Amino acid sequence: MVRPGGRSARVQASVHAAVRELMSEVGRDALTVPLVAQHAGVTPSTIYRRWGNLQELLSDVAVERLRPDTAPEAHGTLASDLTAWAEQFLDEMASPAGRAYTRDALLGDPDGSNAGQCSAYAADQINLILSRAAERGEKTPGIETVIDRVVAPLMYRILFRPDRLDAAYARRLVAEVLRPAQPVTS
Amino acid sequence: MVRPGGRSARVQASVHAAVRELMSEVGRDALTVPLVAQHAGVTPSTIYRRWGNLQELLSDVAVERLRPDTAPEAHGTLASDLTAWAEQFLDEMASPAGRAYTRDALLGDPDGSNAGQCSAYAADQINLILSRAAERGEKTPGIETVIDRVVAPLMYRILFRPDRLDAAYARRLVAEVLRPAQPVTS
Repeated sequence: MVRPGGRSARVQASVHAAVRELMSEVGRDALTVPLVAQHAGVTPSTIYRRWGNLQELLSDVAVERLRPDTAPEAHGTLASDLTAWAEQFLDEMASPAGRAYTRDALLGDPDGSNAGQCSAYAADQINLILSRAAERGEKTPGIETVIDRVVAPLMYRILFRPDRLDAAYARRLVAEVLRPAQPVTS
Repeated sequence: MVRPGGRSARVQASVHAAVRELMSEVGRDALTVPLVAQHAGVTPSTIYRRWGNLQELLSDVAVERLRPDTAPEAHGTLASDLTAWAEQFLDEMASPAGRAYTRDALLGDPDGSNAGQCSAYAADQINLILSRAAERGEKTPGIETVIDRVVAPLMYRILFRPDRLDAAYARRLVAEVLRPAQPVTS
């Protein structure tokens, strides 16, 4: 049993803090488990026992850094809320820090739970936006549709196809998921 | 200058082959640069000079493994060609090997060129399908639209949100990109 706020939580907080501080002081490539342990005031075996290896520790730290710290801004309509959220999401995830955290989250993640947590952060924010709109009586697409049509193209292009990634693209994805599409053209 | 078929090409071929053989013999986690070098009959410094480190070598091997080795099947219509392609793409990329290669391709890829190559493979296949359809006089969506609406959701869910990933989902994505969408519902 892990007591919240007990030794386990203190170890996690100090190890996470040590990783963040060392990343800005010596850079990511110079990190080692013994260095992090020394900086955090724990033994290396504490880290190995809890996280397995450096990559899994970095993955946990990355997911923590990717957690949104505020609810999405409320602008009064579904279109404006979702547009503002998508622009900010793109800004954050396409930044050098966002890309590095996303890679770390994907990497040291043998069971996929950290990647799933990243997706859940986005889904939670979008769900809140959709719920507010539904309370106002606006028609809304489903959460999985917004993930397919807005989140997925943004993340796919950040990772695999970074051309043409700008706020106008994010706005267009939102506009298209909120309106009936036109027939395909040749 | 690198002569195609010269020493440089032979070194690449033997090092790539050594990685593939060792991966099945000893497993990915046991790979080291000295082990790969010994197996390939080159010196470790040859590998470090050319690839930088093990992760970048694994990224190059992964991209090579992800290259499609045949043109997409031709079934006579855009809908059937794109559906067959999407089902096969999902099958391959969601398999344990496909996931491992995708992770490797993303990881040891400081400038993003290997990830870009993965996306280009898919774009080339889809372009061929769209060109065939256009030659038959069928109306077609644009390549970037197919990437946003079919490839991106498949890859996003493979990496971040693996629930509900099946052939029916791939077929639905294709059906939706090829028909005028319905108005959003509440």
